[in-house]
Amino acid sequence: GYTVARETGMGGRVNTIMQTCFFAISGVLPREEAIAAIKKSIEKTYGKRGESVVKRNFAAVDAALSHLHEVKVPAQVRATFRMRPPVPPEAPEFVQKVTAEIIAGRGDELPVSALPADGTFPSATTQWEKRNIALDIPVWDEKICIQCGKCVLVCPHAAIRAKLFDPAEVNGGAPPTFKTADARWKDFKHMKYALQVAPEDCTGCGLCVEACPVKSKSEVKHKAINLAPQAPLREAESLNWDYFLKLPDNDRKVLSVSQVKDVQLMRPLFEFSGACTGCGETPYIKLMTQLFGDRALIGNATGCSSIYGGNLPTTPYAVNSEGRGPAWNNSLFEDCAEFSLGMRLAIDKQNEYARELVARLSSLIGDELAGGLLNADQSNETGIAQQRERVAALRSKLAGVNSIEARDLHALADSLVRKSVWAFGGDGWAYDIGYGGLDHVLASGRNINVLVLDTEVYSNTGGQMSKATPRAAVAKFAAGGKPVAKKDLALIATTYGSVYVARVAMGAGDMHTVKAFLEADAYDGPSLIIAYSHCIAHGYDLVHGLDQQKAAVNSGHWPLFRYNPRLLEEGKNPFQLDSRTPSIALKDYVYNETRYTMLTKSKPEAARQLLELAQKDVQQRWKLYEYWSKMPNNGEEKK
Amino acid sequence: GYTVARETGMGGRVNTIMQTCFFAISGVLPREEAIAAIKKSIEKTYGKRGESVVKRNFAAVDAALSHLHEVKVPAQVRATFRMRPPVPPEAPEFVQKVTAEIIAGRGDELPVSALPADGTFPSATTQWEKRNIALDIPVWDEKICIQCGKCVLVCPHAAIRAKLFDPAEVNGGAPPTFKTADARWKDFKHMKYALQVAPEDCTGCGLCVEACPVKSKSEVKHKAINLAPQAPLREAESLNWDYFLKLPDNDRKVLSVSQVKDVQLMRPLFEFSGACTGCGETPYIKLMTQLFGDRALIGNATGCSSIYGGNLPTTPYAVNSEGRGPAWNNSLFEDCAEFSLGMRLAIDKQNEYARELVARLSSLIGDELAGGLLNADQSNETGIAQQRERVAALRSKLAGVNSIEARDLHALADSLVRKSVWAFGGDGWAYDIGYGGLDHVLASGRNINVLVLDTEVYSNTGGQMSKATPRAAVAKFAAGGKPVAKKDLALIATTYGSVYVARVAMGAGDMHTVKAFLEADAYDGPSLIIAYSHCIAHGYDLVHGLDQQKAAVNSGHWPLFRYNPRLLEEGKNPFQLDSRTPSIALKDYVYNETRYTMLTKSKPEAARQLLELAQKDVQQRWKLYEYWSKMPNNGEEKK
Repeated sequence: GYTVARETGMGGRVNTIMQTCFFAISGVLPREEAIAAIKKSIEKTYGKRGESVVKRNFAAVDAALSHLHEVKVPAQVRATFRMRPPVPPEAPEFVQKVTAEIIAGRGDELPVSALPADGTFPSATTQWEKRNIALDIPVWDEKICIQCGKCVLVCPHAAIRAKLFDPAEVNGGAPPTFKTADARWKDFKHMKYALQVAPEDCTGCGLCVEACPVKSKSEVKHKAINLAPQAPLREAESLNWDYFLKLPDNDRKVLSVSQVKDVQLMRPLFEFSGACTGCGETPYIKLMTQLFGDRALIGNATGCSSIYGGNLPTTPYAVNSEGRGPAWNNSLFEDCAEFSLGMRLAIDKQNEYARELVARLSSLIGDELAGGLLNADQSNETGIAQQRERVAALRSKLAGVNSIEARDLHALADSLVRKSVWAFGGDGWAYDIGYGGLDHVLASGRNINVLVLDTEVYSNTGGQMSKATPRAAVAKFAAGGKPVAKKDLALIATTYGSVYVARVAMGAGDMHTVKAFLEADAYDGPSLIIAYSHCIAHGYDLVHGLDQQKAAVNSGHWPLFRYNPRLLEEGKNPFQLDSRTPSIALKDYVYNETRYTMLTKSKPEAARQLLELAQKDVQQRWKLYEYWSKMPNNGEEKK
Repeated sequence: GYTVARETGMGGRVNTIMQTCFFAISGVLPREEAIAAIKKSIEKTYGKRGESVVKRNFAAVDAALSHLHEVKVPAQVRATFRMRPPVPPEAPEFVQKVTAEIIAGRGDELPVSALPADGTFPSATTQWEKRNIALDIPVWDEKICIQCGKCVLVCPHAAIRAKLFDPAEVNGGAPPTFKTADARWKDFKHMKYALQVAPEDCTGCGLCVEACPVKSKSEVKHKAINLAPQAPLREAESLNWDYFLKLPDNDRKVLSVSQVKDVQLMRPLFEFSGACTGCGETPYIKLMTQLFGDRALIGNATGCSSIYGGNLPTTPYAVNSEGRGPAWNNSLFEDCAEFSLGMRLAIDKQNEYARELVARLSSLIGDELAGGLLNADQSNETGIAQQRERVAALRSKLAGVNSIEARDLHALADSLVRKSVWAFGGDGWAYDIGYGGLDHVLASGRNINVLVLDTEVYSNTGGQMSKATPRAAVAKFAAGGKPVAKKDLALIATTYGSVYVARVAMGAGDMHTVKAFLEADAYDGPSLIIAYSHCIAHGYDLVHGLDQQKAAVNSGHWPLFRYNPRLLEEGKNPFQLDSRTPSIALKDYVYNETRYTMLTKSKPEAARQLLELAQKDVQQRWKLYEYWSKMPNNGEEKK
């Protein structure tokens, strides 16, 4: 089936092929009648997406029939291997007893008593699932790799990772095919660099290959990372992956995190989710967990990100070697901002009370420790690590004390460590259904970070028109193309003057994206990051997702910017335009996507008019942005 | 009581005085003890509003005691006049039978059958209420009046009106004290001008006197309109008012409506509401009804404007001499924008169907009439009047025809006349509770006009902090002063590029306000007008309401602007800044109002810091506005 799909240009889609085979041999309908009906249905379903899609599906039907042959089922089992258990034997007890049963389709047989009484599920359980869905997986060419980390950054499933390690500190034992290279870091020249794929967790999307900037000089197209069939590689790479995981995590305190190159060394705490192959949203979430995951709290609006973020039976949010990871909760579609603000308010109150108690109990705790706890500089990883040590020391001092205040402080001590609170959601939530609440939270002045995973298509809800739908795109309730321009949520948020705002697109500016996340977390107030997220619902092969992100930026549809209220306080222009004057026409971006081209088939004249208006939108907005970015300062006299 | 209030600087407030009298003579408590308790309560209640308020109240208590004297009740009734009935005998039947009973406090005795079955109450019933609450009413000095119409514009209760009339067409009969002057209009030199007060409907707020720009040369302070005690004037002025009402309304078709001077001649269709004396909201509503009331549909968010807009038993929305007036409905607090959009959608659909029917029935109707109906230019009053005539002709042609289509068209014919759909509400609705829906409606591209009556204080809901609360103001839940800046709803709306936006303040720019209303109605898309509305909850004598509006604008707290998407289409800068560089310090505006000064008493240091930040807000915003207003054009190449 997959061979036919590949050969007929269907990529990994085998639906049409397997359906053809079923009707060809099942006798439900006369064979010729069934095939004719399938073709008719293809025309009806895909006709509006263009002739080439129909032709590919027709070819797949024909090739399916010509490849159809009988596989004899032997009378006796002769295989020497057994079905693998749903999870490996080294998985923890809960995963063995509960998660594995649900994976195996026996969830109905679980007693209620086996489920967590308060609904809190253990995190970091996707690692036991081993879905093995990739036909091809990436293979590293360590000889030409420049160790930029771009493949690690864009991987939607955290299935490619990098580590630096000191060979002297690792007592050998590497599997024979485990690859390393000399580290290309000025400060870590003595170390080795390893880039490792999780062969059973990779989905084979190919974004890593697209992201790789290395071009081999040989005639054969070859990069520093390339796809190859999974099956022959699985066993060896699984051993390599296990070995890689056991190498110590890189010390966050010594990483500078000013470059994508450094980010790849930070352990992701969001891995192997059930998101679509090639998903454009998950790399942003993964990045957040790399940067702040060990002290993050996340409220997640219902939508794609809540589904792949924590649908039964497994949880992609994970923990590091110290057992720290994000706390995550799924809110309703419409109240994510308010829900996440509640997390912030709770932490602030806990912190306030804990600080009061530290002051009151300082003679018990010791003045030096108390002073350290209250005056800690937690602006960087070192400061945070030191505060964690102080909290541990505080805990041990309080352990034996039986007063109410000491017990309260023991319970609240963790709130003395700086937290990063996030609201995650899609465009449906942020632009539409939850916007009233989002606006309220942005206006609150509170230190909360909002990440909008903007696919522009209300993805999980079903592709309805929304205020995030761009002009000229087709959506449910906008079969004739969206008649008005997309809401500029980012620009709206800048009107407060007290909100950090960034519009990012990882495929067009990966360093820009990293900077925006760092600045958002550092800003002691509300932050909003709107992240361009390519999506299967856009209607093209997502292996080109990053190229489309570049085209979105280069056409001016998605100008990158950052608005930093701190600059305003310094008397500077807070609005920094981070992308260049549009260099391609809007049509050269939008007409790579079915959501736009559909209209050129169904209503060519409307498509032409709307494209013209949309092109004007781009020009007008760019002019305004550019003008604003050149404003000498923003009203504040320099001191 | 009122004498004591006036003499002790309490204005019209007699609470403290009457309470003192009650306790002084009732014997509920020993007199000295009661007076001491009253004074203690005054200190507690008004202490935070400042020493002068406390002193005034103390003085009122003392003066009340010294003025206290017994009024002998005669053994026999000797009066020669009777209690007036709740409504005059010329009121319509429903008002006599239902409204009057409720006014008289006998609503409970009404049978259910007397009430309208569908909840639709007759409009224009406040005119029968004759509340007679003004101690003083305005008196016109026709000799020095320049006929500018400012007093008519600002009157919150539509209790001062102006008309031009041709003496030749009026068959005398004017009461002896009815005043007129020669019309000061270039085009209407042959006519007489009358400015008339409704003595029994005026609330005596004095805003008309404040608005009057005429300064007499005599030493005594005297304007072209001045307050004088109501009682001696009532009888004569009531006759004058009745006579004035009978003069024909000025013909809308011949008025140019480019000046406030012209607006005064348009009959208001919102009158004598139950709004507070000196209300800053109602003049905007009244203006809308003067300009578009005979073809307006209004959805009104719950709040002050819905209470005075239609609380039982009377309705201030009125009809003109042709029986036309606004259709009005009260929505929930939170859904006014959506509710009003529903009105728009219904009308658009009715209009679409009516046009279809006109085309289909053109042989029955006659091609000329059908063509006229379908191609009517309704951009001005003359065009609208002509279309109304065509609709009347259409109706009479259809009257006898019994087909379904003819009956449908007969029912829908009115939808062929251009309508003006409005959503009315306060800041609590627009900035906070209903903002999600408001945003959705503004983004819809539909032709709907939104009027936000912005008092900044969630007036009717009870003075809670909201996103409309300015930085440094005290509100419920912001006892320490609002810490963050006010949301710039007007600027936010401009980010769509397709929304007409105006920020107005009638007291600072009356012509600007009129222009904004005209442009909003003319724009075939969503419009948003945010209107500065002074309010008793601001804490000062509202006779200075217009001066405070000027101060709000002159300090830069409330910069006036208009954003017109039509200019964008013409390749011009759509953003027009309509007020001048701030000329006074913010403190010279805010510290006239108790909502700000309270904080200087309760938390002087916080007040100082917040004022400083608020002053910075003003400067930064002004700089941005000014810079934007100077942008050469907005992206569109000139053709």
